[in-house]
Amino acid sequence: MTYYGSIEAGGTKFFCAVADEQLNIIERINLPTRSPKVTLDEVFAFFDTYPLIALGIGSFGPIDVNSKSSTYGYITSTPKPGWQNIDLLGSLKERYQVPVAWTTDVNAAAYGEMHLGAGKDTESCIYLTVGTGVGGGAVVNGTVLQGFSHPEMGHISVQRYPGDTVESACPYHDNCLEGLAAGPALEKRTGIKGQLLEATHDIWEIEAFYIAQALMNYTLTLSPEKIILGGGVMKQTQLFPKIRASLERQLGGYVALPVLEDYIVGCDLGDNSGTMGCLLLAKEKCEIKSDEFVS
Amino acid sequence: MTYYGSIEAGGTKFFCAVADEQLNIIERINLPTRSPKVTLDEVFAFFDTYPLIALGIGSFGPIDVNSKSSTYGYITSTPKPGWQNIDLLGSLKERYQVPVAWTTDVNAAAYGEMHLGAGKDTESCIYLTVGTGVGGGAVVNGTVLQGFSHPEMGHISVQRYPGDTVESACPYHDNCLEGLAAGPALEKRTGIKGQLLEATHDIWEIEAFYIAQALMNYTLTLSPEKIILGGGVMKQTQLFPKIRASLERQLGGYVALPVLEDYIVGCDLGDNSGTMGCLLLAKEKCEIKSDEFVS
Repeated sequence: MTYYGSIEAGGTKFFCAVADEQLNIIERINLPTRSPKVTLDEVFAFFDTYPLIALGIGSFGPIDVNSKSSTYGYITSTPKPGWQNIDLLGSLKERYQVPVAWTTDVNAAAYGEMHLGAGKDTESCIYLTVGTGVGGGAVVNGTVLQGFSHPEMGHISVQRYPGDTVESACPYHDNCLEGLAAGPALEKRTGIKGQLLEATHDIWEIEAFYIAQALMNYTLTLSPEKIILGGGVMKQTQLFPKIRASLERQLGGYVALPVLEDYIVGCDLGDNSGTMGCLLLAKEKCEIKSDEFVS
Repeated sequence: MTYYGSIEAGGTKFFCAVADEQLNIIERINLPTRSPKVTLDEVFAFFDTYPLIALGIGSFGPIDVNSKSSTYGYITSTPKPGWQNIDLLGSLKERYQVPVAWTTDVNAAAYGEMHLGAGKDTESCIYLTVGTGVGGGAVVNGTVLQGFSHPEMGHISVQRYPGDTVESACPYHDNCLEGLAAGPALEKRTGIKGQLLEATHDIWEIEAFYIAQALMNYTLTLSPEKIILGGGVMKQTQLFPKIRASLERQLGGYVALPVLEDYIVGCDLGDNSGTMGCLLLAKEKCEIKSDEFVS
């Protein structure tokens, strides 16, 4: 039997799964992210019982995705203590000696949703997660988007909502999307945790403004066929119509957009976007008999 | 002998060229953009004397690049009088019955520079022109970037430079890059035409701030291997070091960038980026024996 492995490596949890040839999930485990040594030992213990033929990793970052770099496969400058300069890809390749696909958690989620979820009828999409942080990945012409590095869409600069003077929650930027629209910024403004805020609270207008502004800028830059929104904050589904309306206002009729109800949507795969993306990438990595395998 | 045709269709001028198999330009002509009928007749007169085997068009826009759309190949909602809803691609296909490549002027320029100019060692780049307007195109994985439509990078929203209260020159947006950084905005602030402003004028700090902010956002969204800057305003070459320094300041050390002197560069092909891109696209369109040809 054929087994593919998936690792969604997050700063809080590692989600690991094993699936069969048809990508049916056979077993899965969620591990709290501790030190690299402890967590990797737990990851190995989970996968060691399966004769994997390929593995897909979608990791928190920033990570090095440049295959010519000496630190290719590393988690690089993350603020997560103990995880700077960790050769995550190398550790997995050494252990299992199989092809391993390597990208960001959000690129993997974009890939999963594009092939099996909300973006099934497209060749390009953006996946944006809004939660304790904001992260974005993309697929262009059917391939995850990577260039000199990977997208870091959560940190684009945004104009302030009129009168919004809250201090940015991002240590790097006074006015970036993550700093003004992720969970911590909601709590800073209201004193209430995001998940406890009522659906009718005024804060959601402000939140929609920032997310819509970012989606407008992504749209004008990338022109994706679909934008898929996930993450804890997006469980506040009253945000979707507000975001669509705000995007329309901010764009001012400059370009014709697709029908917004089809263009800006939630995840179809629920919390499985990343896992399914990793499994798909693993399967493809295997099929193309990648250089990874012989290297 | 093999002849490829190129049309860079601009709101002010049409640049037409014919090249041989090796893309050596044999003849070229610059036509002022008048009414579609008059200009197209002049374009036909130029190309009619050559047995073209393929044609590449890089057009001002917005244009319809969705091959499934009923207005595919049209210039759509342009403010240029007389040019709304003009079937530019269709007119050329009907006249010459050859494969015709169709994209934006800036996508064509990005393609030309990536293959033959400043981006030769890359697979992805952004080309941004800053002149009377601001336009951006991109190549990702060697292919011009198009999704539901094409990039319109000049209209992303930007934060104001502290104290800059000039009225935006964009009729659609109070705070977009084009409205605050294209030639007309320079003139609004200083009362002097951009090309007459001294290299030491304070305005260039403000200009660099806006361009750098946009490049930061494109970088965080697309992660291109190279950003190539062209257009009249960029002939003020003192802008390049200012833009690099401002980008570094605004990014705040969040992600590691390539060496900025290699990352943010001018055009290698001078004013020929678009023409060479169109010729390359024509040649490839021909080689792939496109559906265009049989349709």
